[in-house]
Amino acid sequence: MKEGWCSFDISEPNFRPLVVIELAKGTKEETREWLTKRIVDKKANGGAQLLVKPLVTENDDQNIYLVGASHFRLLLGAEAVGLVKECNDNSMRTFTYTSRKTFKDFAEDNHNFLTMAECQYIIKHELENLRAKDEKIIPGYPQAKLYPGKSIVRRLLTNGILVQIFPLHDQEELKKLRHTWYGRVKIGYQPLDEIRCYFGETITLYFGFLEYFTFALIPMAVIGIPYYVFAWEDYDKYVMFATFNLLWSTVILEVWKRFCAVMTYRWGTLLMKRQFEEPRPGFHGVLGINPVTGREEPVYSSIRRQIRIYLVSLPFVCLCLYFSLYVMMIYFDLEQWALDYHQENESNFSSLLLFVPSIIYAVVIEIMNRIYRYAAEFLTSWENHRLESSYQNHLILKVLVFNFLNCFASLFYIAFVLFDMKLLRQSLATLLITSQILNQFAEAFLPYWLQKRHKKRMKKKMFSQKTDTDLSLVEQVSLEKEMGTYFGTFDDYLELFLQFGYVSLFSCVYPLAAVFAVLNNITEIYSDALKMCRVYKRPFAEPTASIGVWQLAFETMSVISVVTNCILIGMSPQVNALFPDSKMDLILTVALVEHVLLAMKFVMAFVIPDKPRDIQIKLARLEFESLEALKQQNALG
Amino acid sequence: MKEGWCSFDISEPNFRPLVVIELAKGTKEETREWLTKRIVDKKANGGAQLLVKPLVTENDDQNIYLVGASHFRLLLGAEAVGLVKECNDNSMRTFTYTSRKTFKDFAEDNHNFLTMAECQYIIKHELENLRAKDEKIIPGYPQAKLYPGKSIVRRLLTNGILVQIFPLHDQEELKKLRHTWYGRVKIGYQPLDEIRCYFGETITLYFGFLEYFTFALIPMAVIGIPYYVFAWEDYDKYVMFATFNLLWSTVILEVWKRFCAVMTYRWGTLLMKRQFEEPRPGFHGVLGINPVTGREEPVYSSIRRQIRIYLVSLPFVCLCLYFSLYVMMIYFDLEQWALDYHQENESNFSSLLLFVPSIIYAVVIEIMNRIYRYAAEFLTSWENHRLESSYQNHLILKVLVFNFLNCFASLFYIAFVLFDMKLLRQSLATLLITSQILNQFAEAFLPYWLQKRHKKRMKKKMFSQKTDTDLSLVEQVSLEKEMGTYFGTFDDYLELFLQFGYVSLFSCVYPLAAVFAVLNNITEIYSDALKMCRVYKRPFAEPTASIGVWQLAFETMSVISVVTNCILIGMSPQVNALFPDSKMDLILTVALVEHVLLAMKFVMAFVIPDKPRDIQIKLARLEFESLEALKQQNALG
Repeated sequence: MKEGWCSFDISEPNFRPLVVIELAKGTKEETREWLTKRIVDKKANGGAQLLVKPLVTENDDQNIYLVGASHFRLLLGAEAVGLVKECNDNSMRTFTYTSRKTFKDFAEDNHNFLTMAECQYIIKHELENLRAKDEKIIPGYPQAKLYPGKSIVRRLLTNGILVQIFPLHDQEELKKLRHTWYGRVKIGYQPLDEIRCYFGETITLYFGFLEYFTFALIPMAVIGIPYYVFAWEDYDKYVMFATFNLLWSTVILEVWKRFCAVMTYRWGTLLMKRQFEEPRPGFHGVLGINPVTGREEPVYSSIRRQIRIYLVSLPFVCLCLYFSLYVMMIYFDLEQWALDYHQENESNFSSLLLFVPSIIYAVVIEIMNRIYRYAAEFLTSWENHRLESSYQNHLILKVLVFNFLNCFASLFYIAFVLFDMKLLRQSLATLLITSQILNQFAEAFLPYWLQKRHKKRMKKKMFSQKTDTDLSLVEQVSLEKEMGTYFGTFDDYLELFLQFGYVSLFSCVYPLAAVFAVLNNITEIYSDALKMCRVYKRPFAEPTASIGVWQLAFETMSVISVVTNCILIGMSPQVNALFPDSKMDLILTVALVEHVLLAMKFVMAFVIPDKPRDIQIKLARLEFESLEALKQQNALG
Repeated sequence: MKEGWCSFDISEPNFRPLVVIELAKGTKEETREWLTKRIVDKKANGGAQLLVKPLVTENDDQNIYLVGASHFRLLLGAEAVGLVKECNDNSMRTFTYTSRKTFKDFAEDNHNFLTMAECQYIIKHELENLRAKDEKIIPGYPQAKLYPGKSIVRRLLTNGILVQIFPLHDQEELKKLRHTWYGRVKIGYQPLDEIRCYFGETITLYFGFLEYFTFALIPMAVIGIPYYVFAWEDYDKYVMFATFNLLWSTVILEVWKRFCAVMTYRWGTLLMKRQFEEPRPGFHGVLGINPVTGREEPVYSSIRRQIRIYLVSLPFVCLCLYFSLYVMMIYFDLEQWALDYHQENESNFSSLLLFVPSIIYAVVIEIMNRIYRYAAEFLTSWENHRLESSYQNHLILKVLVFNFLNCFASLFYIAFVLFDMKLLRQSLATLLITSQILNQFAEAFLPYWLQKRHKKRMKKKMFSQKTDTDLSLVEQVSLEKEMGTYFGTFDDYLELFLQFGYVSLFSCVYPLAAVFAVLNNITEIYSDALKMCRVYKRPFAEPTASIGVWQLAFETMSVISVVTNCILIGMSPQVNALFPDSKMDLILTVALVEHVLLAMKFVMAFVIPDKPRDIQIKLARLEFESLEALKQQNALG
């Protein structure tokens, strides 16, 4: 069964498999032929002009295809997706095939000019842009309707004919990356440029942010330690710590933007023109004329979407928030009841009973979180957003608000209704530490262990005992296609966001939170790296220039934490002791301080430029050059 | 002396004088010849390829030139400045000479395709872009150094050889515009499109904003009237009024952005690409290489500018603010002293003395404002900003902060230190009304009267009794060159900004403020229109797409007014009566309401899109088309 491959390898030595297409079992011969023909066909005929080869496996059902492309084709594709690369004069420019010789490291025979991640991204882009010409249906599947311009791959995916498309790992490269990333215990930065070459910009920016954020927390952690060690309780020290934290968090978020601009400029994504976004796969509507493109495609009225958002989704989210608060109140009642019971009949049973409400609450929160997540995904999908980015933003907003309430409502209740600072500190510590341990376990180690077991079983089945790098292509594909899919950086950012909440919202009550956060993040880098390299299928690279909506989320959190910290300081007995006569003066002072802090934050955010000066100059130069080019073009025309 | 003109008019029937250049008296013959040659010279030789004619006046000193251009030259210039015009298919596109036939109303013989304001803007742009080639000095003036690429006109201006450049009025058009704008008493909108054709976008946006703002204030005024008529003092009505005002001000500022986008899209400026900005005339530095353009030009280190801003300007501004507060305190002391004196020795003299502090304070404020304005201009100029826009932003910020304090500090003091609501209401009314009357008088009617007197004297001197439209060109130029120069919309916006402060900062104390503001703005439209048409030289049109930094200024004011109104309501005796037992509960409630209002404002600003949907679609279509064009170009190349 491997002969097929051997003969193929000899006949076409240039074919390097980059992307795997898995069709459903039992896909009709007719469909398979039509699809492969369309993929291979010339651009002029509406094809993708890629190379495609069936993968011959034990069972004869031919449902896996490998897709590659010639070097020339990839370069044309790089131009089509608008890749930005470094030129010989160290400036970054949009790559075009005609100007290819001016780019750094370009040579006709240098197949490493494009990174493998870039090649795979190009192939994904070309496959997704394979559009129906005059086909009305997918051959063999009369129920899968097509119209001119409809993306074939998206229709195949929504109809379940196409199971998945995923890029192949490169075992050599991966091994090298693993080694420099987390293979040896060392103090140092992550190899972000190498990660970017292998996984693309979106994932690398997450790791970059995680690392940056960890470093940024260190000053907070260092200042927080003596508070714990010496049990400082003076109000002035607390005020200083909180003030430092609040201004510091603004500074780090602003400086991150600059840091991010430097990185994405180097990677070329800062300059990459936003491509015209196609409708997301799940989008549906009556066929009409898109007012932007003038093409025929499903159209869905924006007013109907607004109605769905404001009249259904928004009330539903509010209801969920209310329900979540209601459950919290029940929890506090149960807690009280258990305490009362314990005090009345002191026994082993009753002291065990003390833990029951917390356990029930933790379980209920987890269940609610999951149900809500499904509901949010369903609702956002039902809102029928045309663009993936708009879908993501609405989903993130929904999940963020609910998670914020679920995680912090009980802490807010303890702090501002029960006024129990001791309980607050205790709850905060418990929540922070347990959530960190659980997360790392559920996110990386459990899947890693499952994956390892599965791999072993697979290998046993194939009667081979080779190491990873010696695996044949057939084995590699069979292994990788069963691996889990990485659904993007959402959950990773969410975890970081909630952690930031634990650290900043109540920072003056529990200065040690930053220490735990730093410790967690150091292991988080390793466990996330492990997860990316070992547990999941390789994800497609996604060019991006920023962490997007998360920047806003973190900034909002830092504004909220100004309010909470000011209230907490105002409530502390030490500060209260300073105003023995008049509570009013105290509150007015606290309110004044809060407003001054908020104003300072806004001024700081305004004064610190989002991009470093040298990047600004480089961007201005590019703009100037394009204006000059336009002028000359006009003068000639 | 008019023969020169007559013969010229016959020989070149196409010459239409658009712009006037006035050289200093006694400018050397050599210089004049060189300048006119450069203006007339072909583009290929580095000239501006415009038409220029001397204006022969009584006194023989030939120091006034009229500049025009052929229709063809103007069309090329329209392309160079990147004008955006409406096409035959109703879309807006950047004008190019080659695609001229696709534009609406274009015909080779239609000289009205470009408005006169656009033609004048083009000529100004071309004159300013007349650059030194290999000249080292301006001929005849060895002290006026040049270097390759230096704008000749700017060097002439800084050396005082060029007195002024200004566009000519078009008496016919102006008469028509005056008639539709303010000639007849009518209820209706201003003819914004016609104003834009005559005065350009920047000035029209000011009038558009003034009109919009007046309409937006009407609901506040209508709700405010019954408070005055029925002398309502119930706290719930006040709370309702203030809440409405605060949310309303956010809505109007957000909706203005949409309104503005609709207008500027129609005018084409929304789509106009930002031109590369040349250094402002006053900018100086050592000759170096500009990192953006690669050209030789004066370079000034950004760090030295930052040092000047933060170590000199910022402390100076703070000092001025402190001084202003100090003067205010002296005023209140004087006031108190006068009151005491009056109570001790009641007499006519003492009751007159009561007014003295207010008068002195008003005069001192006015003097301080003027001195500060000069100081701010000097400092901002000394900060040596490379770009005019950056200079303007720094100047606006400085003047804004000081004016804010000067106008509102005494009101804040009365409200939040003296707690005297009656005095606050009285001061607010006095300040608002007197400042409005004084402004209108000083801004429009006084200059109008002076201008009229001057014109009469001029006409008498020329022994002619004709009406405006019959004036000969020589007379017109002599009249216009003596008219005052309009220094931009700064003072007009500032007036509106302060008015917005009076209306919104203390709206719950004095609901009638909106009524006065509406009344003032209606007359303001007329007096400003009069000022533009009759008092000042015609200003050059400036394309712009928004009101720029003023949007931010108004939004900041609306945030500050949330804070002030909440405090005012919290201080009112009616609200205090609701919390008889605990002042603490009162303050906490007020703080909570304030935070909720602020949060609502931010959410509203976030939710309301900045551009209406149809404009969004049109912009997206343009972007899509340019992407497609790029793709096709690449496919061909």
